[in-house]
Amino acid sequence: MSEKIKVAVIGASGYTGIELIKILDNHEKAEIKYMTSRTYSGKKAGDVFPLTLSLKNNSERSFIDEIKKENLNSIDAIFLCLPPGKSMEYIAEIKDAFNGKIIDLGADFRIKNEKEYEKWYGNHHILKDYLPKFVYGLSEINREAIKKANYVANPGCYPTSVLLALAPILKTGNFKIDSINIDSKSGVSGAGKKLKEDYLFLNIINNFYAYSAVNHRHIPEMEQEIKNMSGFQINICFTPHLLPVDRGIFSTIYINLKKNSNIVNIENNIFEYFNDLYKAEIFVQFLGENMPELKDVVGTNTAQIGFMFDKRTNTIKIFSAIDNILKGASGQAVQNMNIMFGFKEDEGLRLNSIYN
Amino acid sequence: MSEKIKVAVIGASGYTGIELIKILDNHEKAEIKYMTSRTYSGKKAGDVFPLTLSLKNNSERSFIDEIKKENLNSIDAIFLCLPPGKSMEYIAEIKDAFNGKIIDLGADFRIKNEKEYEKWYGNHHILKDYLPKFVYGLSEINREAIKKANYVANPGCYPTSVLLALAPILKTGNFKIDSINIDSKSGVSGAGKKLKEDYLFLNIINNFYAYSAVNHRHIPEMEQEIKNMSGFQINICFTPHLLPVDRGIFSTIYINLKKNSNIVNIENNIFEYFNDLYKAEIFVQFLGENMPELKDVVGTNTAQIGFMFDKRTNTIKIFSAIDNILKGASGQAVQNMNIMFGFKEDEGLRLNSIYN
Amino acid sequence: MSEKIKVAVIGASGYTGIELIKILDNHEKAEIKYMTSRTYSGKKAGDVFPLTLSLKNNSERSFIDEIKKENLNSIDAIFLCLPPGKSMEYIAEIKDAFNGKIIDLGADFRIKNEKEYEKWYGNHHILKDYLPKFVYGLSEINREAIKKANYVANPGCYPTSVLLALAPILKTGNFKIDSINIDSKSGVSGAGKKLKEDYLFLNIINNFYAYSAVNHRHIPEMEQEIKNMSGFQINICFTPHLLPVDRGIFSTIYINLKKNSNIVNIENNIFEYFNDLYKAEIFVQFLGENMPELKDVVGTNTAQIGFMFDKRTNTIKIFSAIDNILKGASGQAVQNMNIMFGFKEDEGLRLNSIYN
Amino acid sequence: MSEKIKVAVIGASGYTGIELIKILDNHEKAEIKYMTSRTYSGKKAGDVFPLTLSLKNNSERSFIDEIKKENLNSIDAIFLCLPPGKSMEYIAEIKDAFNGKIIDLGADFRIKNEKEYEKWYGNHHILKDYLPKFVYGLSEINREAIKKANYVANPGCYPTSVLLALAPILKTGNFKIDSINIDSKSGVSGAGKKLKEDYLFLNIINNFYAYSAVNHRHIPEMEQEIKNMSGFQINICFTPHLLPVDRGIFSTIYINLKKNSNIVNIENNIFEYFNDLYKAEIFVQFLGENMPELKDVVGTNTAQIGFMFDKRTNTIKIFSAIDNILKGASGQAVQNMNIMFGFKEDEGLRLNSIYN
Repeated sequence: MSEKIKVAVIGASGYTGIELIKILDNHEKAEIKYMTSRTYSGKKAGDVFPLTLSLKNNSERSFIDEIKKENLNSIDAIFLCLPPGKSMEYIAEIKDAFNGKIIDLGADFRIKNEKEYEKWYGNHHILKDYLPKFVYGLSEINREAIKKANYVANPGCYPTSVLLALAPILKTGNFKIDSINIDSKSGVSGAGKKLKEDYLFLNIINNFYAYSAVNHRHIPEMEQEIKNMSGFQINICFTPHLLPVDRGIFSTIYINLKKNSNIVNIENNIFEYFNDLYKAEIFVQFLGENMPELKDVVGTNTAQIGFMFDKRTNTIKIFSAIDNILKGASGQAVQNMNIMFGFKEDEGLRLNSIYN
Repeated sequence: MSEKIKVAVIGASGYTGIELIKILDNHEKAEIKYMTSRTYSGKKAGDVFPLTLSLKNNSERSFIDEIKKENLNSIDAIFLCLPPGKSMEYIAEIKDAFNGKIIDLGADFRIKNEKEYEKWYGNHHILKDYLPKFVYGLSEINREAIKKANYVANPGCYPTSVLLALAPILKTGNFKIDSINIDSKSGVSGAGKKLKEDYLFLNIINNFYAYSAVNHRHIPEMEQEIKNMSGFQINICFTPHLLPVDRGIFSTIYINLKKNSNIVNIENNIFEYFNDLYKAEIFVQFLGENMPELKDVVGTNTAQIGFMFDKRTNTIKIFSAIDNILKGASGQAVQNMNIMFGFKEDEGLRLNSIYN
Repeated sequence: MSEKIKVAVIGASGYTGIELIKILDNHEKAEIKYMTSRTYSGKKAGDVFPLTLSLKNNSERSFIDEIKKENLNSIDAIFLCLPPGKSMEYIAEIKDAFNGKIIDLGADFRIKNEKEYEKWYGNHHILKDYLPKFVYGLSEINREAIKKANYVANPGCYPTSVLLALAPILKTGNFKIDSINIDSKSGVSGAGKKLKEDYLFLNIINNFYAYSAVNHRHIPEMEQEIKNMSGFQINICFTPHLLPVDRGIFSTIYINLKKNSNIVNIENNIFEYFNDLYKAEIFVQFLGENMPELKDVVGTNTAQIGFMFDKRTNTIKIFSAIDNILKGASGQAVQNMNIMFGFKEDEGLRLNSIYN
Repeated sequence: MSEKIKVAVIGASGYTGIELIKILDNHEKAEIKYMTSRTYSGKKAGDVFPLTLSLKNNSERSFIDEIKKENLNSIDAIFLCLPPGKSMEYIAEIKDAFNGKIIDLGADFRIKNEKEYEKWYGNHHILKDYLPKFVYGLSEINREAIKKANYVANPGCYPTSVLLALAPILKTGNFKIDSINIDSKSGVSGAGKKLKEDYLFLNIINNFYAYSAVNHRHIPEMEQEIKNMSGFQINICFTPHLLPVDRGIFSTIYINLKKNSNIVNIENNIFEYFNDLYKAEIFVQFLGENMPELKDVVGTNTAQIGFMFDKRTNTIKIFSAIDNILKGASGQAVQNMNIMFGFKEDEGLRLNSIYN
């Protein structure tokens, strides 16, 4: 077997970190060399997560506090699984000592306008000159740039679910759009491993509600990428909700067309746009007028997308389903690594869904 | 104790029928005289539902096939819990022999334009002259008409959740509206007691998806009542979804205002409109900018409504939560009976939620 | 309407406290005068729980830190909803100033042998002379003593589910028993309102496991009451498990008979023993060889009990289902209050289940 | 890559059939040649299950009605996923034309005493001479026999969960056992794809109950294998329950020891027996006195087993968790195929759990 690249996972004990370890453990071309965790520094993965069978092969490996400077260049790629503000701090610290590639699963390098970043995240940006160096890692849309990139800003979970659904419509420039309303529903793992009353079983089961109803931080990221992929500047109206499930995001997107839109053959056109963009993709399944379901995508790196045109209201409805931790985070991160290193794009990602 | 009115429940063994029996069983002013069920005719409720403790007081009462003509006038009110097309057949049959009041939980008399009814329901309407006699039973909005009505068409579950949320905004006529997108999520009991593969546990748990995405039958009912309450004719874009919970409807409503809308003080105005309409209501709780939750309303006859104004997109978002079987069906039906007979409006309906 | 007794709820903001308030709010013979809560002292219930519709009638009432000594005798009964060790402290403090009745939902006065109490709970007992004054409040079994009692120790949730199931068998003394294995499964509300990682949604949903597998504190309580009701001294083997539901306890009880037991007509005998004990009871439903289900009892104060005799192994299996917060705590507490004050036993407790 | 063996899945459209296809699709040493399904004969898998991403690689392959006799010997192994009575019919039909290996996931060849089979299953056995040819496929216990076998009877899901837990205790012969009570809890997928009212979402969610409480068909299979592995003849008292989860079996096993048992050092001994038997196993994880959890094993082929000794009652409690469709059916079937053909035992079975 050919030699594997060596990777490090920084912030390895959260949901996205653990999921990266699970995926990389079965990857034929990459292997984990370091896993850092402030919380579990010095402890073996097998002691911290004794029952997590998926970590079995890494059970003897210890979490470390941080990678020593002199060891940085023994690794080929770093995955960052850090809270807002921490990725830029980490990169500022290592940038002179590390020559490899970086895939940041956090938010610090997604938004290119640092004022927008500061407004929505409340952090002062300390590494502005790196903003243009980071390619926005929406794999299917930005593949060519990702191939050449040294730095990838992995998209947020909601933006992945929404932008893949919007891209075929927006990239054509053929629709006159009045407004876009996006109603997304996420499983609880989207909130990460927080010990918060809101996430207690008794507050989630048999329940449903919206949160961050006008100010979710993923809004500027979506608007920026809509602009980038289509030249179209629009404020989107986005509402996330909490579903009583562990995993998955389902987005229902309403594209309200202008009243005088030409809607001849609109269904056929939409079919064509989606097929053109996605027919060769292994991780986007376009269902036409069939309906995606959460249970079909959970456990996989695939996005399922369907649509309906409501001619009574001149509205295109798009339905999109992904696994928030896989295609919405760690799965797409590995897909991006595969693209950056020229591996098969589905290496390590041939995952079965559990629910069907 | 004063004498109770006598009521009959026609189609008593479905979800809404059973729930009516449970409510009426604790009602101080009404008592059940007949319960009909084609399926269980001749069987005692206690034999059909041996474990359903809530039917204990009616366990010795038998379901009958139908009420004999000569007995019809011994009852004061009839509740109809029948599938589309069956209510009009039943009323056609009994109308000459029955002088009491009718509350129809079905769809046959909600839509006043029989052509619309036929288009959306696929049934020819056989009792058109009764259409104007039926008052649309949205209790808080049409209370005065309900007081005087002999016939009430009880609203659908989605329309109840949506119209109560829209009324304060639309009745003012103060907003210039471009489009309304309504994203509703319902628990599985909304589908009734159907033995269908879609409703198996394994197809619902850990799952989520939209259905009837452009043609749900509740659309014309909502558009008609929007027109009735506001004079405003609009096609709404409505999408229902299936939640992995047993009960409850949560609706997220996007009112996209025209770009040149005057939005000075809009939040204050919305507060005022909602408070004006609902401050005296016992079954509508306006939460201002707080968020309703499904678990707070399930088990009760109350609608919780909150809102947010998204000034970036000029969109009013309204959030509404009800129990689909109670406020969305049997609870509101009893509320309407209370109004029609001059009982206290919450008689029989002082119900505790189970989840908090 | 006749005058109502005045009651106080001490520790009113936990699950059992809230449930007491909900029940008492619809009680025709009792009304809440004080609700204490260290956490929410000085705050209105409506401000602390703004969405909890069931507290609407008490929303203007404030939680207080404690009842002033001089006000104690304006109340007729006190409900204690306090953690282990705190009930005895509270009673020690008020006993000279309060002449009314006390219903303790906690554990301090259930176990009559203070050494056993200290061994299992780790607390030194500071009010031993009150131990014999407290009647064990298993309503159906100890009704006559409860009628005359000033102090009632309300049973634990697991003991209620188990002892009601065992009583008809054990009280006869007709069976030669080798061993009793009790396998109980509880909804998450049984753990109270603890913010603990174990009770996060993601750790409960799609999961199941046992806990406190050999040392649950309810064991000595069950063994003591088995002895009291039957004279039979036995160590029981008890295992509690955590179910991914919010409410309810289901117990499967294996009574392994001695090999030489006379098992002629055993099924008939069991039917007879259960019917003799429970046929007149409103809150115990004996199902014979039918199976109880959790969803039938959740939301009610009723215990459902069924049995099967496994002749291949000479084992009587008993199945029992209750709502842990109602029959297993606050519901039975109000039932006991009703018995103590001579009210109708189901006053305030005519509750409908939500799930059927 | 070396040539792969060719396999057929008979009855490929049920849960266990689909799961076999998903596993085999990623198997380096085996490939599917035929999949039969009466229901979907002639249809492509991709048309029958359009959203099931895990079948993507087989989406162009059609289900066939049956394999032609002349093609039988182009395949190396047949998996039978058929209801009771159908496996023996199928083998009777093909036995003269097929020389390969057979792994039967059904019940027909598990019970070696045909009278017992007929008593519990109600079917007359038509292929008694094949009964001794079939090795009982509990992989870890019967590995040596499986290596040499042409025919393997794959264990039932409950027996797998129970027998792996009992084996270390029973094989020693060092315990004097009075009785064994087995309390098992299974996810709903254990019932297969039946359209039955019991399996509707509304009858499972928030619910829990026992079924087949004295006569489950897996009882004789467990008693036979207890005898085979230990020489110990005992009637076990077994109760299965239905959990509101999709997948997984959790068994709580009570081994009641005789009163005069020598219990010196019993915990140490149990540790030793389990470690001796399982320390080298990749698919059994012995946790000592830690507790298995369902969410840790679902999605994997691993059994997790823990224990506690309750010295107050002289009872060994064993806790066991498996995925009922994987280790309890299709996963173990592939594990057996791997053993029979000399492949790596975990080939195709390096699966990650989804829930942690």
